[in-house]
Amino acid sequence: MSTTTVDVELGARRYPIRIGRGILTEGLLADRIEGDSVIVVTNETVAPLWLERVHAALGRGLRIHDCVLPDGERFKNLEVLQRILDTAVDHQCDRQSTIVALGGGVVGDMAGFAAAIYQRGIPFIQIPTTLLAQVDSSVGGKTGVNHPRGKNMIGAFHQPRCVIADTATLDTLDDRQLRAGLAEVIKYGLIADRPFFEWLEGAVESLLARAPAALRYAIEQSCRNKAAVVAADEYERDRRALLNLGHTFGHAIETATGYDAWLHGEAIAAGMCMAARVSERLGMLTMEGRERTEAIFRAAGLPTQPPAIEGARMLELMAGDKKARHGRIRLVLMDAIGAARVVDDYAHEALAEELALPSSAPVPKA
Amino acid sequence: MSTTTVDVELGARRYPIRIGRGILTEGLLADRIEGDSVIVVTNETVAPLWLERVHAALGRGLRIHDCVLPDGERFKNLEVLQRILDTAVDHQCDRQSTIVALGGGVVGDMAGFAAAIYQRGIPFIQIPTTLLAQVDSSVGGKTGVNHPRGKNMIGAFHQPRCVIADTATLDTLDDRQLRAGLAEVIKYGLIADRPFFEWLEGAVESLLARAPAALRYAIEQSCRNKAAVVAADEYERDRRALLNLGHTFGHAIETATGYDAWLHGEAIAAGMCMAARVSERLGMLTMEGRERTEAIFRAAGLPTQPPAIEGARMLELMAGDKKARHGRIRLVLMDAIGAARVVDDYAHEALAEELALPSSAPVPKA
Repeated sequence: MSTTTVDVELGARRYPIRIGRGILTEGLLADRIEGDSVIVVTNETVAPLWLERVHAALGRGLRIHDCVLPDGERFKNLEVLQRILDTAVDHQCDRQSTIVALGGGVVGDMAGFAAAIYQRGIPFIQIPTTLLAQVDSSVGGKTGVNHPRGKNMIGAFHQPRCVIADTATLDTLDDRQLRAGLAEVIKYGLIADRPFFEWLEGAVESLLARAPAALRYAIEQSCRNKAAVVAADEYERDRRALLNLGHTFGHAIETATGYDAWLHGEAIAAGMCMAARVSERLGMLTMEGRERTEAIFRAAGLPTQPPAIEGARMLELMAGDKKARHGRIRLVLMDAIGAARVVDDYAHEALAEELALPSSAPVPKA
Repeated sequence: MSTTTVDVELGARRYPIRIGRGILTEGLLADRIEGDSVIVVTNETVAPLWLERVHAALGRGLRIHDCVLPDGERFKNLEVLQRILDTAVDHQCDRQSTIVALGGGVVGDMAGFAAAIYQRGIPFIQIPTTLLAQVDSSVGGKTGVNHPRGKNMIGAFHQPRCVIADTATLDTLDDRQLRAGLAEVIKYGLIADRPFFEWLEGAVESLLARAPAALRYAIEQSCRNKAAVVAADEYERDRRALLNLGHTFGHAIETATGYDAWLHGEAIAAGMCMAARVSERLGMLTMEGRERTEAIFRAAGLPTQPPAIEGARMLELMAGDKKARHGRIRLVLMDAIGAARVVDDYAHEALAEELALPSSAPVPKA
């Protein structure tokens, strides 16, 4: 079994992402544990499938405490977070204890945030078990929970010590989750990697059929793209904001629908199509560019349109999103496939039209 | 009115501590606000005394939202923290919004932690209104809340943009709080500044009488001492641990008594005397050194002995403290007045005796 490594270059916080099939049981995990106690955070869906193998991979000689959370984005809140903190306090974990996140993005975000704030920061390791988590949330150190009135409103930057992306864990992923993960993969092509986008146009079917080589290349290329952006701008002062393509729309969809009806990947797929259409309306993106954007999401079985949400409500939710700057709604838009940029000063009519608002409707001051 | 400035040298996170009488209303505050909205976090005791003046100091043109918390260490928890986060979300504060902490250590720790985790970090400014906060909690970026089973178990490092220590705010401080603050002032002498300790031996009375010049010098010298340690070791990898002199004992006292019976300063005063006695027992500190340590706390009207807590319980609480490393109880002990160090490998009998345990009692493995 071979392993590909993508290094995330962050100076003292540099860490490797290992990608490969069956690598979870290869000793990579045990090598990275420093202290003598470990908390494995996972959820009720993943635990029966993978927890035992993680225990085996950790080996003997460690005190291992499991924290099994309910499964779902709606549990990504401060209340459920406290269970992880309680586990750590109850077992007198110290600053050398390690938190291992075994699961998808929700588990990773919560376990990472718990590691960020327990005793002001302890080590953590990510074992992402969904495609979405392998290509997105496990790279870059964003951790956190949702607020009832806003997604990811509460959190911290906290880099993992390493990420172990075992593609075998995707065998147990259902088709809908796989498609949702592809949304983030496609995003990297749209933002800054046209050759990758073009490869994806031809590879969507193989990916949906879970062809191992295609999956591995897609994960590796996604991680490389994200790692490059994160290394250049760890704390999202500028360039990193590009990774939010489709996310201001997507977060509004998720908040409006209550976090559980739409998967994150589905929401941002629709969001990226909305961004492409706004870009076309503004004369930034060609019709062909917009059509290819919609076509690839359609081919991946992902939505290209948002659910029925009143335009005024969408706008309000978008204005409350973190990407708002001094009350203006910043958007990541596209000049072309593979060339996204952050735009503050666009003609608001283009956004109003996309949201089916009367084009004279004022954009709210947040 | 003149202002003394102590700079905390932390590279990109460098910030000034301004110290002086009446400086709050001098425009220092408004100069430091970047965005267009501010949340002032304070408590029910401080708000009637100082909130209006802070509003005036912020000037016009800002959206100001107040968040008035109940007063007391027992409210320093995740639940009360959420009120600050709710205020920020409700008013759609963005990443340029500033949180201003107006109050003592509890307000500062909570406001700072909210600033650390709201949208993964927004600016904050400290206006400490107790002696304790002016010399300790406002310097160094430690923020956080208590867990029901451990003090400061949940938190983050987050440096303020500046600290405004207006000594006029101490006029409204009650005597007990003033004495508690002196405990931290004396600590800096004990750890690393013998000349300052000797000055304090002669100045305790003036300080208790709130002589302005003495107070200002004590605050300035304390901040200089702490800033030097923090600049050398921001994340408490080694040297910063010295600042915990008396704190492992003190936190155990606070946890055992439920956080409210003893003020933090009182608990660490007793804790420093305990550390001095253990140091003497180990042959590290002379009898004279131990006696002068106890004498200065006595002169300041502070306790030199812990309350009645069973030794085994103290030990258990100490083992659960953050300073435990791999289950061992690390202590900050003294070789002399002005020369403290972190000790891992001491004879446990000395600690057992101080806690009035049978000297054969085993030290628990955490």
